[in-house]
Amino acid sequence: MDRPGKLNRGLSVIDSYKLLKEGEALTDDEIFLASALGWCIEWLQAYFLVLDDIMDNSHTRRGQPCWFRVPKVGLIAANDGVLLRNHIPRILKNHFKGKPYYVDLLDLFNEVEFQTASGQMIDLITTLEGEKDLSKYTLTLHRRIVQYKTAYYSFYLPVACALLMAGENLDNHVDVKNILVEMGTYFQVQDDYLDCFGDPETIGKIGTDIEDFKCSWLVVKALELSNEQQKKILYEHYGKPDPANVAKVKALYNELNLQGVFEEYESQSYQKIVNSIEAHPSKAVQAVLKSFLAKIYKRQK
Amino acid sequence: MDRPGKLNRGLSVIDSYKLLKEGEALTDDEIFLASALGWCIEWLQAYFLVLDDIMDNSHTRRGQPCWFRVPKVGLIAANDGVLLRNHIPRILKNHFKGKPYYVDLLDLFNEVEFQTASGQMIDLITTLEGEKDLSKYTLTLHRRIVQYKTAYYSFYLPVACALLMAGENLDNHVDVKNILVEMGTYFQVQDDYLDCFGDPETIGKIGTDIEDFKCSWLVVKALELSNEQQKKILYEHYGKPDPANVAKVKALYNELNLQGVFEEYESQSYQKIVNSIEAHPSKAVQAVLKSFLAKIYKRQK
Repeated sequence: MDRPGKLNRGLSVIDSYKLLKEGEALTDDEIFLASALGWCIEWLQAYFLVLDDIMDNSHTRRGQPCWFRVPKVGLIAANDGVLLRNHIPRILKNHFKGKPYYVDLLDLFNEVEFQTASGQMIDLITTLEGEKDLSKYTLTLHRRIVQYKTAYYSFYLPVACALLMAGENLDNHVDVKNILVEMGTYFQVQDDYLDCFGDPETIGKIGTDIEDFKCSWLVVKALELSNEQQKKILYEHYGKPDPANVAKVKALYNELNLQGVFEEYESQSYQKIVNSIEAHPSKAVQAVLKSFLAKIYKRQK
Repeated sequence: MDRPGKLNRGLSVIDSYKLLKEGEALTDDEIFLASALGWCIEWLQAYFLVLDDIMDNSHTRRGQPCWFRVPKVGLIAANDGVLLRNHIPRILKNHFKGKPYYVDLLDLFNEVEFQTASGQMIDLITTLEGEKDLSKYTLTLHRRIVQYKTAYYSFYLPVACALLMAGENLDNHVDVKNILVEMGTYFQVQDDYLDCFGDPETIGKIGTDIEDFKCSWLVVKALELSNEQQKKILYEHYGKPDPANVAKVKALYNELNLQGVFEEYESQSYQKIVNSIEAHPSKAVQAVLKSFLAKIYKRQK
């Protein structure tokens, strides 16, 4: 789902809106407006990615040099990120001013931006260079980072946009938010799993979570399942660039059968999400949520 | 006006609102709300300053190390800047949601942020390292940078906040906006002048606009008034760190009598602004604008 320029987040506004209209044909105007909201989400993501790459000192993004690495750009990229972000309220004002849900759209994008920046903050201070400390890495922390940094803007935001367009009041859809945050968490756990156990050919990159001392679901789970001696291995080898260190960590992951633990997590989490979806009173909303879930269940990339 | 932690922009929301109420005593609630809007402007400024310092690779801000220079902070400062910014819609939602002008406040802050980021962009690409080219520096460019980067958020925004609180429709106050942008330009020309001719003791810093190849009103004016031979001096010595180069530029500024040219500009600009203010139909609005002007006219710091 998270591949170069696939525009999944943006496109899912249109998909979700279609499902909410239960087969009714969309007018050109509705398709245009749903697309405009989709682009707002894409600009929000672009803004965060441009800034994240600066802060993580990254090298490439979607197979190209990061924007701030382009010679004449440099740190001016920070302001370019801000400009990308500023297109969100401009698009909203141009196309939604006067709609009854205009102010709700503004509030929604503001809230989700704040949640994402907060998640980014927790992530950055957790992974702070020079303060590498595995004892901070717990399932609670992992969940909190994922929820704020990824789930709200990637999973909740597209559906919330579609709900607003369909005339819904978001205050009545806290359960939808909770289910989508759950799905976002599940998606990120898959991401963490594939970083280590996925096929680099298929996922399109070589994972470096172990080298980068990332608060990955795998290391959190490994810490939880380790005895004292295994914990020592993690403390000694996690977060070091040398392939020998990485190999020790991977060997421990296999010893702890993390692939099996993940499969168990995947099926339990899937079942829990399906149950929550089926408890929802609206068939149309159920269809939106099921469509999201189908896109990510048992994905290999 | 632009000194360490003076909160001038924020405080001027309250001052302006008081003047709009023409002597009527403000309730505690009104003072609280005007102060909340003032803080929003301060957070907007803080956000831009944190990012600007990163992009300009600055060392100090208000006599302290820039936030990104603090050892454990580094480029994480970019996300901290974003978090500062995100407090604006949070404050607005907490205290203004439900007011008839809530959506106008959101639109106003969004518009002014975009204008400021656009001004910052023009400034950054003009001053781009490795592309030093004086022939780009004209009064039109100077005015455009100042208008977008400084005038909207420092001059227009506080008054616009006060007008919205007073129940006014900003569409009816384009003339107020124009006068305030004019004042903002005048303020920035003073700033450029004081950078070179002000007393470092009084202004609290040693100007480096010449060394930094800034698109200052002085160099623009000098280019306009120079003959070919004088232009050559500017092209040769402007934007170089060596004090000998700086001295050559300053000598030329004196030769061209830029102090006298500035005084002429100052009195003409002042008169023009006073005339525009006095043409305004509302005495209360006149009072707001005159109070702003009095704060900056013939300032020495």
